Amino acid sequence: MATIPTELFQELAHKTGSKIVLVVCDGLGGLPHPETGKTELETARTPNLDALAGRSTLGYAELVGLGITPGSGPGHLAMFGYDPVRYQVGRGALSAVGVNFPIRPDDVAARMNFCTLDENGLLVDRRAGRIPTELCERLTRKLQDQVTLPGVELFVRPEMDYRGVVVLRGEGLSDRVSDSDPQVVGVAPLEIEPLVPEEERTAELANAFISRAREVLADEHPANGVLLRGFAKPPHLPSVDELYKLNAAAIAVYPMYRGLASLAGMEVLPTGKTMQDELATLRENWDRYDFFFVHFKYTDSAGEDGDFDRKVRVVEEIDGLIPRILELEPDVLAITGDHSTPSILKAHSWHPVPFLLYSKWCLPDEVDRFTERAARRGSLGHFHASEAMGLMLANALKLLKYGA
Amino acid sequence: MATIPTELFQELAHKTGSKIVLVVCDGLGGLPHPETGKTELETARTPNLDALAGRSTLGYAELVGLGITPGSGPGHLAMFGYDPVRYQVGRGALSAVGVNFPIRPDDVAARMNFCTLDENGLLVDRRAGRIPTELCERLTRKLQDQVTLPGVELFVRPEMDYRGVVVLRGEGLSDRVSDSDPQVVGVAPLEIEPLVPEEERTAELANAFISRAREVLADEHPANGVLLRGFAKPPHLPSVDELYKLNAAAIAVYPMYRGLASLAGMEVLPTGKTMQDELATLRENWDRYDFFFVHFKYTDSAGEDGDFDRKVRVVEEIDGLIPRILELEPDVLAITGDHSTPSILKAHSWHPVPFLLYSKWCLPDEVDRFTERAARRGSLGHFHASEAMGLMLANALKLLKYGA
Repeated sequence: MATIPTELFQELAHKTGSKIVLVVCDGLGGLPHPETGKTELETARTPNLDALAGRSTLGYAELVGLGITPGSGPGHLAMFGYDPVRYQVGRGALSAVGVNFPIRPDDVAARMNFCTLDENGLLVDRRAGRIPTELCERLTRKLQDQVTLPGVELFVRPEMDYRGVVVLRGEGLSDRVSDSDPQVVGVAPLEIEPLVPEEERTAELANAFISRAREVLADEHPANGVLLRGFAKPPHLPSVDELYKLNAAAIAVYPMYRGLASLAGMEVLPTGKTMQDELATLRENWDRYDFFFVHFKYTDSAGEDGDFDRKVRVVEEIDGLIPRILELEPDVLAITGDHSTPSILKAHSWHPVPFLLYSKWCLPDEVDRFTERAARRGSLGHFHASEAMGLMLANALKLLKYGA
Repeated sequence: MATIPTELFQELAHKTGSKIVLVVCDGLGGLPHPETGKTELETARTPNLDALAGRSTLGYAELVGLGITPGSGPGHLAMFGYDPVRYQVGRGALSAVGVNFPIRPDDVAARMNFCTLDENGLLVDRRAGRIPTELCERLTRKLQDQVTLPGVELFVRPEMDYRGVVVLRGEGLSDRVSDSDPQVVGVAPLEIEPLVPEEERTAELANAFISRAREVLADEHPANGVLLRGFAKPPHLPSVDELYKLNAAAIAVYPMYRGLASLAGMEVLPTGKTMQDELATLRENWDRYDFFFVHFKYTDSAGEDGDFDRKVRVVEEIDGLIPRILELEPDVLAITGDHSTPSILKAHSWHPVPFLLYSKWCLPDEVDRFTERAARRGSLGHFHASEAMGLMLANALKLLKYGA
């Protein structure tokens, strides 16, 4: 089906008081357990989701394209209504926005991992024994204070555990440079090299940073070095306000998802660490926004850990939260994922995700569960996730008629 | 749904030891028999395909686009992952590669049919009484030996029966010239004409060849003339290795399909004349490749002949071969067609084809047959065949994650 040009939405979207809630359960889709033949969603007891499915329109949402396993960036961008092939968010940029760093269009950001190097400079541990966040914070501060680079501003920020972000700001920087992380241990980190000949300066600066970092961290253990990868400038995303006239808020615990929402122009609300905290934040801010992106992380974590039963329990926990969302009487409630993370694969996968849209104005499908296979039978069929935004807006009566 | 740019696959594809088998049953799709209301696939007893369908993901694959009846070229290119509108393979080029002629980018090839002309030069038989391949071989050799053209190299090669190939090699040749085959008898063959004004030289050379051929064949019967059609240069297809990092082999009895596979950069394996021979070839070469294209011709031949019952029997024969393929434990087995050839139409048709993909990592559909209508209920729905390659690669775990 032809994709609607975004200009058309800009023309048709209008502001109303109606409210949309988009719940993204990270890594929601799964695969059957070898013993039962049932997926995590099919195994879970989900009376609230099932009842809602019976009053909703469902579909099987392709995030990027057939066979493509989406990272969290493309998966979320698609659900926010962006073409995830046109708009790519590099890892560095994602990390920077994730720690609330006010990244500018020409900044170049890279993901930094603390690592352990032996006396010969060979990698012993690419994650420096997964040092705690507190140590990461102290070491990034030390790097920020003691390292300077010629002709550019340098920002070093902690993320979580052994992870941080480095941002370079100055004239003529490029993100077309290679990684220093060799992805294996027992070898020396790689020199950073320009991927196009004229971009040598950024590579030189990055190598200088790594070299200085090693001097500054010489007495630290186990984090006595850094690896850089995923150099990226931020993408130039038009905001959801610009595209859809949405005054949107994001509720997410993890930095990366907060960062993605902020790239899309959503206001990122402070919240706690649990799904219950997130719902409290939703309730408290209910009157202030007309679109809420609510991110639930733990379906993905359980899938990544290969813990089928835990993923089932997280789904059941989410099911228990549905009535609390419905109490708020959203005009549209969409529930879906940003990609599948089948427990039996222990990783993101290429499988589409179930998508459910409830509104007073939807024509309910003849489906009585919220599972991958039930969603496949939904009337949206196998559709592209980036088209979901149009459907959410329409069901919230936020789109005018097209054409006379 | 947005098509994934091939560059993305080039970026994500990586080499693994996993193995993909793509079985293309030529002209697989059909239409209901007027008396029973069942298609050939619905009529056939196919316990193996049905059992496999229950463990697979299915869909109804559109080869080119709604309403477009694909020739074998576009149908196969789509299943190999190419956009069949962007990449067109002319008949002449297809014939040339089909006979293993090492065609070069600037060569111009045409399909040659031996024909029978009466004393007035009018066409009596466009296929020269379907002369046997042996005679075709002798006559093409005679033409090769006795005809020369000014300023170009000429190659004349036999295909099967009354069919051959002519290739012109030299500076400034063009494939923008018309056919000499008038497609009817009782008239004289047509003069070959340039389709654009500046391409006269190729037309002149082709007409000179036809005229000389008539002199050389004057004493032959019934093949005393030749018709040329489908002038074409070879398309510049990036290979499946270049696009998908596949070390691919093709197993096909008929020259055209061998030619198509070779254009896509597959290695064409020597094989016998039967489907059993083809499976023996598959088994013998199992360890040497990671992608196998296996072509079964006879579903199409039966459909073209309008022989419903024979097409049913060929389908049942193919069903009997499925366990032999599964014994090899392919990581991915896809079974489909390159177009439909309904027996009641006696011709290729525009109907999509059933597509089945089995892998350990697919989420099985709730389908228990391998038929056109069962495939429509599959979760892939009505999808574009050129997207199947991505799905095969994904299920063989040959694609990295896209985006951070």
